[in-house]
Amino acid sequence: MLAPRDLPDIAADALARIRARRPRVHCITNAVAQNFSANMLLAAGAVPSMTIAIDEIADFVARADALLVNLGTLDPERRAAIELAVTTAGARVPWVLDPALIDRSPPRRTLATTLALRHPRAIRLNGAEFRALAGAEPSAQTLARHATAQGSVIGLTGERDIVSDGSRTVAIRNGDPLMAKVTAMGCAASAIVAACLAVEPDAFCATAAGLILIGVAGEVAAARARGPGTFAVEILDALHGLDAATITQRARLEP
Amino acid sequence: MLAPRDLPDIAADALARIRARRPRVHCITNAVAQNFSANMLLAAGAVPSMTIAIDEIADFVARADALLVNLGTLDPERRAAIELAVTTAGARVPWVLDPALIDRSPPRRTLATTLALRHPRAIRLNGAEFRALAGAEPSAQTLARHATAQGSVIGLTGERDIVSDGSRTVAIRNGDPLMAKVTAMGCAASAIVAACLAVEPDAFCATAAGLILIGVAGEVAAARARGPGTFAVEILDALHGLDAATITQRARLEP
Amino acid sequence: MLAPRDLPDIAADALARIRARRPRVHCITNAVAQNFSANMLLAAGAVPSMTIAIDEIADFVARADALLVNLGTLDPERRAAIELAVTTAGARVPWVLDPALIDRSPPRRTLATTLALRHPRAIRLNGAEFRALAGAEPSAQTLARHATAQGSVIGLTGERDIVSDGSRTVAIRNGDPLMAKVTAMGCAASAIVAACLAVEPDAFCATAAGLILIGVAGEVAAARARGPGTFAVEILDALHGLDAATITQRARLEP
Repeated sequence: MLAPRDLPDIAADALARIRARRPRVHCITNAVAQNFSANMLLAAGAVPSMTIAIDEIADFVARADALLVNLGTLDPERRAAIELAVTTAGARVPWVLDPALIDRSPPRRTLATTLALRHPRAIRLNGAEFRALAGAEPSAQTLARHATAQGSVIGLTGERDIVSDGSRTVAIRNGDPLMAKVTAMGCAASAIVAACLAVEPDAFCATAAGLILIGVAGEVAAARARGPGTFAVEILDALHGLDAATITQRARLEP
Repeated sequence: MLAPRDLPDIAADALARIRARRPRVHCITNAVAQNFSANMLLAAGAVPSMTIAIDEIADFVARADALLVNLGTLDPERRAAIELAVTTAGARVPWVLDPALIDRSPPRRTLATTLALRHPRAIRLNGAEFRALAGAEPSAQTLARHATAQGSVIGLTGERDIVSDGSRTVAIRNGDPLMAKVTAMGCAASAIVAACLAVEPDAFCATAAGLILIGVAGEVAAARARGPGTFAVEILDALHGLDAATITQRARLEP
Repeated sequence: MLAPRDLPDIAADALARIRARRPRVHCITNAVAQNFSANMLLAAGAVPSMTIAIDEIADFVARADALLVNLGTLDPERRAAIELAVTTAGARVPWVLDPALIDRSPPRRTLATTLALRHPRAIRLNGAEFRALAGAEPSAQTLARHATAQGSVIGLTGERDIVSDGSRTVAIRNGDPLMAKVTAMGCAASAIVAACLAVEPDAFCATAAGLILIGVAGEVAAARARGPGTFAVEILDALHGLDAATITQRARLEP
């Protein structure tokens, strides 16, 4: 049985494998998030691609090691691209669902509900998005129940992150309040989870690893930042320079 | 009667209210500007959203406290989204028109002229855009005349900003030349004006407050920057950390 | 006959002319690259525009001094915009083709092959993209052969950049490994080449100048950076502050 104390080592190991294998991570994400997500993936050692064009999305996903589907800025072409991408991914390419802002848009919530049935390995969301998707207040118990019902790992981010696959649940107390002051930070967290899924077959471990990595990088960045502008720059440097000792010393996990 | 010397206090107060109330500002803006505008809004304390999808734009605008309509990168879906957004906003959600680059594109100018008739609370533009919209050289007199004809506050940015609602006019001498070396800085100024309109019902005061805030933040940033790259980062930190004393000490207004 | 030792002076001169003339550079580029490319062009002294809307692309290109056509994120509207832009450019507006990621997408490669026949002044690409376009391993010989066949200057970027117009070939050993860790750095290099083409009629000199400028700016930035986040900020400052002495001292050329 996996103990939470193993997860920091797993996170450090996942980062080492991303740097060694340079997995391709294809992202269907919103225009606000594309540049920052691509730079976060590069900083971690992965190789991002971002096209949503219907003519070529299948080629990109077929060559990818992981896929991120983010619902932000949902336009008709993006819907069609998502459908093609998820079909192409099938069971071979692990994918992450990021139901961004579904609490604010009924058609987006409908799409998220449908996509959640198609077996994403992980769903990364915040509290308001969890309420909209699962119809329940977020807690270790409701996350575990929803993960079981869905067959996907749920990774909830907020002041305290919670990851559950139904049978295993862990809380992560890393990160910094400045993370909420940079747009698309949650989208970038989802992208890093996708990169971890490309190198770590256990989706619970991969999701926890991704959130540990971004949380620890956020703390390192906050120590150098003077506000949200410098923070967004420093978190790229921090993720790029992150070493195993920093990860294992800083990770704060609770069962 | 409002004196220009009251405006710095009004700007400081508007910023305090944005931080306290966290208004939602929905932005229809170009892909170049989306990320930076979202980060500027977050740095000020507002909550940005950016979708232009036709299926959900009405839901987002209905839940917003202010709306920005920027014409940059004008594609067919964006036109339809603008129409829906302005209709949804009606008289309830204050909105800002940013007729970006209408001097370079006849169809964009036509659209701007039509939109200007639908009562935006404020129109934020530069000198070339004012010439294209109003058919006159920008000056305190022509701005006042155009504001009266239009029924909107006009906020002109440049070396010297001028704000007029027809009866009241003020010039603002803040900012830094590096602001012209960062793309989408004008779009971000329009977004900050929208955030001010969400908390300040007097549209003249809100527009002047927004331009004072971004101008003063620009000066604080310039003191730390070594070029346009560091400047774009520092202005986010400066806006995030701006206090009332800095605003009132630095604001340079002329009647 | 031009000697490679003349090229650093030509690069410094091209930068001086960009700063003096402020050429308009219209970019059809992907959403990931738009903001950074616009900021790089502004840092160099050029005036960027980025619309891809079919209704107005011809107006923007007709008023531009150079055009960049980048195939990243290829959607149907962008294809139509490219067709209109290249037709409008004709022989009057020099244009650069950036066949981004054609090695990963067959429809994108097909489009690149067609566009390459329409006389771009320069084609800027990396090794994998050259292999996909030319069907050969990249070398001074294959580049020269392809440049002759195509009637375009080929500018290959990588650890060592190579520029050839068929009769003249030069290798440039500038830059820094961090350039590969920032998304859209190649797209930005293509945009800078376009800016050089706006002020330098000899396309071989303009392409080499653009790659020298970005390579030297990259070295200056790397000396101040602690990772890819600070590097992306510092290269904007470096390009903005670049002087002729730094260019001629640092440029490392091989025949």
